[in-house]
Amino acid sequence: MAAPPHDDAHGKVDLSIENLRSQYQQSTLSPAEVVNVVYSRVSAYHDKAVWITLIPQDDTLERANQLSTQYPELASRPPLYGIPFSVKDSIDVAGMPTTLACPSYAYTAITTAFVVQRILDAGGILIGKTNLDQFATGLNGSRSPYGIPRCVHDSDYVSGGSSSGSVVSVAADLVSFTVATDTAGSTRVPASLNGMVGLKPTLGTISTVGLVPACKTADCVTVIAKTIDTTLVALNVMQAYDEDDVYAREVPPTPVPWDKSSPALRYGLPPQDLVDTSLSPQYLDLFNRLLTALRSTEMQLSLNMHYEPFAEANAMLYGSSIVSQRIVAFKDYLDTHGYDEMHPVVAQIFSDSAGFDAVRAYEDIFSLAKHKRNAYKQFRGGPGGEDENERIDVLIVPSTSTHPTVDEMLADPLALNKRLGTFTHFVNLLDLCAVSVPVKATWARRDRDLLELGRRMMEMEM
Amino acid sequence: MAAPPHDDAHGKVDLSIENLRSQYQQSTLSPAEVVNVVYSRVSAYHDKAVWITLIPQDDTLERANQLSTQYPELASRPPLYGIPFSVKDSIDVAGMPTTLACPSYAYTAITTAFVVQRILDAGGILIGKTNLDQFATGLNGSRSPYGIPRCVHDSDYVSGGSSSGSVVSVAADLVSFTVATDTAGSTRVPASLNGMVGLKPTLGTISTVGLVPACKTADCVTVIAKTIDTTLVALNVMQAYDEDDVYAREVPPTPVPWDKSSPALRYGLPPQDLVDTSLSPQYLDLFNRLLTALRSTEMQLSLNMHYEPFAEANAMLYGSSIVSQRIVAFKDYLDTHGYDEMHPVVAQIFSDSAGFDAVRAYEDIFSLAKHKRNAYKQFRGGPGGEDENERIDVLIVPSTSTHPTVDEMLADPLALNKRLGTFTHFVNLLDLCAVSVPVKATWARRDRDLLELGRRMMEMEM
Repeated sequence: MAAPPHDDAHGKVDLSIENLRSQYQQSTLSPAEVVNVVYSRVSAYHDKAVWITLIPQDDTLERANQLSTQYPELASRPPLYGIPFSVKDSIDVAGMPTTLACPSYAYTAITTAFVVQRILDAGGILIGKTNLDQFATGLNGSRSPYGIPRCVHDSDYVSGGSSSGSVVSVAADLVSFTVATDTAGSTRVPASLNGMVGLKPTLGTISTVGLVPACKTADCVTVIAKTIDTTLVALNVMQAYDEDDVYAREVPPTPVPWDKSSPALRYGLPPQDLVDTSLSPQYLDLFNRLLTALRSTEMQLSLNMHYEPFAEANAMLYGSSIVSQRIVAFKDYLDTHGYDEMHPVVAQIFSDSAGFDAVRAYEDIFSLAKHKRNAYKQFRGGPGGEDENERIDVLIVPSTSTHPTVDEMLADPLALNKRLGTFTHFVNLLDLCAVSVPVKATWARRDRDLLELGRRMMEMEM
Repeated sequence: MAAPPHDDAHGKVDLSIENLRSQYQQSTLSPAEVVNVVYSRVSAYHDKAVWITLIPQDDTLERANQLSTQYPELASRPPLYGIPFSVKDSIDVAGMPTTLACPSYAYTAITTAFVVQRILDAGGILIGKTNLDQFATGLNGSRSPYGIPRCVHDSDYVSGGSSSGSVVSVAADLVSFTVATDTAGSTRVPASLNGMVGLKPTLGTISTVGLVPACKTADCVTVIAKTIDTTLVALNVMQAYDEDDVYAREVPPTPVPWDKSSPALRYGLPPQDLVDTSLSPQYLDLFNRLLTALRSTEMQLSLNMHYEPFAEANAMLYGSSIVSQRIVAFKDYLDTHGYDEMHPVVAQIFSDSAGFDAVRAYEDIFSLAKHKRNAYKQFRGGPGGEDENERIDVLIVPSTSTHPTVDEMLADPLALNKRLGTFTHFVNLLDLCAVSVPVKATWARRDRDLLELGRRMMEMEM
C-alpha cells in the first residue's frame, strides 16, 4: 500500500469537481494523488459511522492509475475523470454488499445500478458505500446498527438522514459528491443540517434500477455536493432515460434559464403561522432574514398562492396507506426474519405501516391526485390560470424545522423525526423537484432552473 | 306537441354529422325537423330497453328552435349545430337523474359533466340518457333492471355492454353519436357487436368530471358513431384539457398523418394460438380474412413483436386488486344499501372485489407499471429500440371473441363476459388508445391516426 499522502503536500485539496478538473488540466494533481488524499482524510476523520463498506485503497489506486493510462489526453477525458464519490448503501454496486443498514438483510449485489455505472463510465472513482437510516426510513441518521453519523459541524448533533453517511462523506471533504436518495426528505434534510447542496431531481429522470425501493412511486436518486457547479456536472452524467426503470421519463428539454426571461420569477411561501410554529428560534430568524433579502431582489412574491395542497400532501405521508409501499420491497425479508433483527424504531414504523386495505389505497391515490392537480394550479396561476398574484414559479420553504442533538433524537424518535420533514414530505408525492441550499430550500419543476436559483440565494447578502 | 314527422317526408334521413351539416347548409332540413325524425324513430323502435331517461320531445324541439334562432348565419354555426346525441347514464346532466342502472343509487345531477357541456355549447341536441350494465360493470348488456338492450341486427343476441343502450341508440339511427365510456372494453365490445365505430381515446384527454367512476385510473369517456367522420367531429369537440379532472392531460399535438410518412406502418398481431382458441368460428374466419387483406397492403407485419405484456396486463383486470377501485366510488352506497338492491351478478362481482390489502394494491400497481413499460418497448422496437421486426406502430386484434345470445349470456354470466374482453382489458391499463371498427379492431397511441387507419380498414376489400 502506498504511504498515505498528506493534504499539505498540495495545500488543502478542494475536492469540488471545478477544482479537480482545473488541477488535472494543469497537471498539478493526478487521480492517484487525489485518491491518497481521500484515504488519508477518511482515515483521519473522527466519525467512524460514515461508511458501511470502504473499498480498499489499493483497489482504488489501481482504478485511478487505470484512468490516467486510459485518458492521457485532456480532450478525451470523460466529465467525471478522477472524481471521487460515494454511494448510499441502498444502491447496488456489483461485488459489494448492499446492506440498507440491516446486517440480516444484506446481500452481495450482482449488477451495478444504472446510475452508478454511468458515473463509473464517466471516470468517477468510487470510494465506498455510506451509512443510512435503516431501510432508508428516517430523516435523522440515528437509526443504524453501523453507528450514528454526526453533523460535520458539531458532533453532538444529528447528521440528518436517511442519507446520513452520504452527507457527511461530502461535508467532511472525503469525496466530491455522493449518490443518495430522497423519498420524503432524505437528501434535503441532511444536506441542510450540514450546509450542503442537496438536489432531488425530477422523478423518473435518474434511473432507480439497482436501488432497493423504500416507496417506489416516490423514490428518487439524488446528488449531494458542496457547490452548485459540482452538483450540475454530476447531474448531467446521472440523468438519463433508462428503459428498464418502469417509472423512467424523458428528461425535459433544458428550458430558457429563468433569469433571462421576463417577467421576474414569482415565488410562493408557506403561511407565516406554519413557519412560526414549526421552526426553531434560530431557523426562524434565518428564514426571516432570507425573506427580507428576497424582498430586495427583482423576484416577486405571489401573495395569493394557496398552500393547502402542499400541506395536505405533506400530511399524507404518515397518515395514509402510502406507507404500505415500504412493505412491498421487504416482504420476503419480513416473512423470513420478522421484526426481531431490525432497528427497534424502524420495526415499529414497519409494523404500523401494515393493515390498510386496497380500497383505502385507491382512495389515498385519488386524494393525492387531487392535491397534485391543486398544487399544479398554483404553478399555472390559480383555477383559471389568470391571477398573477396566485401564480408561482417556485416555492421557497425552510428545508427543515430544527436541528436536534443525538440525545434529543433518541429520546423522541418518532415525533421529532416527523417534524424534520414539515417542508419536505410533499415534494415527491406531488411530483415536484427540489433543491436544498446552504441557507434555505426551494423547489419547483425544473432541475437546472432550481440550481441557478439556488446559486443566487447562496450568493445573497443577508 | 308537434305531430310526429315522417322520415319519408325527407327520404330516409341519414343522421351522420356529415349529412346533417350538408343538409343544414342547403336548408333542406332544420334542427326541429331532425328532432321530430328522431322522436318518431325512438317511438317506433321495437327495443324499449335503450333509454333510461328520454327528454320530452317538446323540450328538445324548443332547444332545436332556439338553435335555429341563435345561429341564422351558416358561418356562425358551431360544429355540432343541430346534432342529436345520447349520453350513457353514468354521466351527469343537470336536472336529470343519474341512475347507473341502479334505481336505489339514482340521484338528480346538479351539474352537467364537462364533456356534455362542451357538446351542448357546440350546438348538440341531447335526446336522453341510455341504459348500461349496472355500475358500468359488464361487457354484455344483460345486467340492468331497465331491461336488456338487444343487438340491433338480431334481437336474440346481446348488444354488448356496458354501453348497451348507448350503442343501440346509434346503431338504430336514433342519434348521430353517443357519449359512452370504456374502462375494460365497454365501448369497443358493444361497438363491434353492432357494427359501429367505437373510439376509446387517450386517457385524460376527455374530461371524466361528472362521470361516476368505475375504475378511476382506467375510466375513459368515448364516442360511438356510424362513421369515422362523425366520430372525428365529435372527438374534436369533446377532447379538451379540464383542469378539474385530476387525471387530465394535454391533448398531444396532432401528428403527421401516418399514411403520408415512410417507412410503411408496422402492425403487430396477437399470437395465432390465442386467436384460434379465443374466437368463435365466424369471428375467426373474419379475422383470418382481415389478415389476408392486410398482407396485400403496404403495411408491414412485425414478426418478432412480444405480446406477453399485453396478455399479462389483460389478465390483471380480473385477477388483481385493481378491481378494488370499483368499491371506492360506491362505498357510501354499499354502506347504506348493502348488496340486496343490486343486480345479483353485479353484487357478486362487487363482493368478490373486496378483501385485498394495500400492500397487494401496490404490488399490482408496480407489476402493471412493468407491463406498461414492456408494452411500450414494442412500440419503440424491442429492448434496444433497434430491431425493425420487433417495432410496431399499431396492434391489430379482434375487438371481441364471440357474439352470445341473451340466453347464452344469462346462463353463463361471468365466464362468458370475461371472454368478451380477451382483447380489450389491457388497453386502458397500459394507457393505450383504441378504436373498434366494423370488421376488426386496432389500437395504438394516437387517436386521430387510429381513426385514419380504421377508415382504411373499413374500406378494404375482403
